[in-house]
Amino acid sequence: MPEYTLEDLAAKLSLTLKGGNAKVSGLNTLEAAGPDEVSFLANPKYAPFLEHTRACAVIVDEAHADKVERALISKTPYLDFGRALALFTRKEGSFVGVSDQAYIDPQAELGEGCVVYPFAYIGARARVGKTCVIFSGAYIGEDAIIGDNCRLYPNAVVLSRVELGEGCELHPGAVVGSDGFGFTRPSPGSDAIQRIPQAGFVRLGKEVSVGSNAAIDRGALGPTTIGDETKIDNLVQIGHNVTVGKAGLVISQVGVAGSCRIGDRVTLAGQAGIAGHLKIGNDAVIGPQAGVAKDVPDGFQGGGSPLVDGQTFLRTLSLMPKLPDLFKRISKLEKELAELRGETDK
Amino acid sequence: MPEYTLEDLAAKLSLTLKGGNAKVSGLNTLEAAGPDEVSFLANPKYAPFLEHTRACAVIVDEAHADKVERALISKTPYLDFGRALALFTRKEGSFVGVSDQAYIDPQAELGEGCVVYPFAYIGARARVGKTCVIFSGAYIGEDAIIGDNCRLYPNAVVLSRVELGEGCELHPGAVVGSDGFGFTRPSPGSDAIQRIPQAGFVRLGKEVSVGSNAAIDRGALGPTTIGDETKIDNLVQIGHNVTVGKAGLVISQVGVAGSCRIGDRVTLAGQAGIAGHLKIGNDAVIGPQAGVAKDVPDGFQGGGSPLVDGQTFLRTLSLMPKLPDLFKRISKLEKELAELRGETDK
Amino acid sequence: MPEYTLEDLAAKLSLTLKGGNAKVSGLNTLEAAGPDEVSFLANPKYAPFLEHTRACAVIVDEAHADKVERALISKTPYLDFGRALALFTRKEGSFVGVSDQAYIDPQAELGEGCVVYPFAYIGARARVGKTCVIFSGAYIGEDAIIGDNCRLYPNAVVLSRVELGEGCELHPGAVVGSDGFGFTRPSPGSDAIQRIPQAGFVRLGKEVSVGSNAAIDRGALGPTTIGDETKIDNLVQIGHNVTVGKAGLVISQVGVAGSCRIGDRVTLAGQAGIAGHLKIGNDAVIGPQAGVAKDVPDGFQGGGSPLVDGQTFLRTLSLMPKLPDLFKRISKLEKELAELRGETDK
Repeated sequence: MPEYTLEDLAAKLSLTLKGGNAKVSGLNTLEAAGPDEVSFLANPKYAPFLEHTRACAVIVDEAHADKVERALISKTPYLDFGRALALFTRKEGSFVGVSDQAYIDPQAELGEGCVVYPFAYIGARARVGKTCVIFSGAYIGEDAIIGDNCRLYPNAVVLSRVELGEGCELHPGAVVGSDGFGFTRPSPGSDAIQRIPQAGFVRLGKEVSVGSNAAIDRGALGPTTIGDETKIDNLVQIGHNVTVGKAGLVISQVGVAGSCRIGDRVTLAGQAGIAGHLKIGNDAVIGPQAGVAKDVPDGFQGGGSPLVDGQTFLRTLSLMPKLPDLFKRISKLEKELAELRGETDK
Repeated sequence: MPEYTLEDLAAKLSLTLKGGNAKVSGLNTLEAAGPDEVSFLANPKYAPFLEHTRACAVIVDEAHADKVERALISKTPYLDFGRALALFTRKEGSFVGVSDQAYIDPQAELGEGCVVYPFAYIGARARVGKTCVIFSGAYIGEDAIIGDNCRLYPNAVVLSRVELGEGCELHPGAVVGSDGFGFTRPSPGSDAIQRIPQAGFVRLGKEVSVGSNAAIDRGALGPTTIGDETKIDNLVQIGHNVTVGKAGLVISQVGVAGSCRIGDRVTLAGQAGIAGHLKIGNDAVIGPQAGVAKDVPDGFQGGGSPLVDGQTFLRTLSLMPKLPDLFKRISKLEKELAELRGETDK
Repeated sequence: MPEYTLEDLAAKLSLTLKGGNAKVSGLNTLEAAGPDEVSFLANPKYAPFLEHTRACAVIVDEAHADKVERALISKTPYLDFGRALALFTRKEGSFVGVSDQAYIDPQAELGEGCVVYPFAYIGARARVGKTCVIFSGAYIGEDAIIGDNCRLYPNAVVLSRVELGEGCELHPGAVVGSDGFGFTRPSPGSDAIQRIPQAGFVRLGKEVSVGSNAAIDRGALGPTTIGDETKIDNLVQIGHNVTVGKAGLVISQVGVAGSCRIGDRVTLAGQAGIAGHLKIGNDAVIGPQAGVAKDVPDGFQGGGSPLVDGQTFLRTLSLMPKLPDLFKRISKLEKELAELRGETDK
């Protein structure tokens, strides 16, 4: 693990150091930090912890800098905490070179500086860029193209003809390029199921992250596409011929059905489901467990099933538990009104 | 890749060719097809694209045949598109033979013409049929029985004593035969959890497909059963002792709890959940994200949580966002009625 | 498979045998049991099957003992059925020793009596306890600590620095210690996504079970923690820095977002989702598909999205399908009231 001082951190992160220098062994929360660790304040509600933290310094904004003995003053404390943490974070695995217990097809191409763990499989005509790391149990199919600096963690699977841009990472068990669910019942009541072959592929842009045990299906025709910088969490399902734009955040267990077009900078929160062939506009934010059954305009923010805007969603949520009471109120109204009509009819 | 002409396709698929012959390199959508590709019209809403497509021919029904220069006339254009596409679709992987980097137990039996990739594991007394393809990282447990023509994609796992019929495919990371969730708390408040051993197995019929990273648990006693032709999508969970009939379609991220009996030709849409010990009738169609908590009769079509018939579901969906307004209307009614009663009491 | 008699079972399980001795080949349901199998009655609704069962004996409570010829009398028939079944259940795999087709880093430590299958990977400085079983395709990262008697089923992944207590089992494809979803958009509309490194680890207590293709992320700082005896089902997602207490049951496809603190003896039913940073009290039971968006007190039982107590949930569920009718009733009330006001105004 590297060693830094507070002055090193201030210089590397372009922050202002208030207070004397000290050695730093790592980062930690305000509560858990020891005297050789740096902490941070990102959320003002944790400001009371500043008083008692044992951290040798805290990454804070200007407004809180005088609450601590030593401060690394930042306009964006959370982001600078992330940048500082990167200096102290070890990457998975230190295996070097290309294992002779791996299988690399004679027709495959491997760029300079790649690491290939034992039991990795690289198929015919696959082209792997420079300084990639292919962990044990990972599979790269025939004619696949892997950009420079990609990391395929243990048991990640890239099927034939899939393309990964530079700097992609596939977490353990992620599957990219399996067949879309191309099955159709020829007629109602038929016991036969016909397969529509899945002849397309998948193209990931640059710096795409795919979570553990997530699945991205190949297109039936042409590609399923994930844009640059888009980050996909664990156990997400992306159907065939879906397009996800750039810089998206697709949180755990989301399902996106076939042929959806998801815009740029979209956030899909955990367990949300998007029905097939829909268009989700740029910058949309879809809440957790939402069920999306129609197109969503640019900038939309909402949740629920059916999907409604955020304000309606919150009001509906708060009213749902009052439904039993509502039914009672209506029965009472009906009864009273009937009485009243009886009276006025007299 | 094979080469075909339009006349070849017409002959192979028993379609009528309208217009002259031409070479065909593949299939594509109406919008994306080039002059050596065949396209198709399955959904009438795309008919306007017929005018501008560059496809050399289009698979269409009789009614649209005169809209294009060359047509392959079909009564079922989508199905015939699928059949045509199959002629041009390459299967995953061209490895041949049995790798000496695989592990095959001396007591395992391997049928004629099997392909076994490096790093596949085949356990003692497993019996693998003819012309199966076992990809790298796949695991076949002891005493498992794999029918002819099965394909176990990379890292697919078949645990001991599981049985697969002919022509099954397990997509990457699919797990068949892991332990059911046989855990029970002996008494409320107890910190101990007792395990009920999972002593059964799984039996898949013929031509069953299991999606990437899906999980099918073995029975506690006896089998978990999936019927012939049933297709299971990615990330689906099938609990212990479930029975799924034939020709079912179980879409991505569905969860079926233990001991359910699902009929024949059932469709379970994405992210639906079925509680334990329920019976779902033949030909039922359950909508996406549905929560099924009681038995469902034959032919039922519906959705929602709780599950209701399709018509009620759609009406309820449209009314949900009007709930806040409804509460206001009722408060107004109550107030007006109170006023009125005040008046009439006078 | 071992052989037992009814007297053996009675002695081993401390049950009272009513009726003569007999050989026992295994256990089965009342309906399916043959004359050399033992069955059980756990749910009184199956009592009518006692009359016709072919089982040589039935594990029953005192009250039902005279309904069968031979009984193993138990105060907790289901639990004793589980204990009996354990005697007849074969564990997955009988490979012995350490395969020379596995990769074991020279700096790794392996306890006595471990079984390591071909194609398992054990990284530098990993410490594996005694009598562990590491199946093919399993990965143990650098500096990981695996307690005694752990089982890592095929393709299970334990990333670097993760700690497993004694007796843990990871089912096929389970991933423990992958990066948390530490991604943040620096500002709205930004195309850049910043990574917050995930520098922590995961600590599983004793006897923890993790289901097939489940994913447990490492902490951003410090551990994600799963308590002793907690059992996690297939396809579950546990986010970074989550704490789950002891003896929890987390059912299939549940998602727990980052930094949640789940108490002891909590049950989370299938497909439920817990938003980030929430506290779920001890002994809480959360229903299937529930959406939890605020803290939950000790002992709470409920369901729905939003989460409500069990009674409100059931009533709301039953009222939902009546919403269309409710809207009609209100329109009628409004009309009648308007008429009445018209009359009384006259």
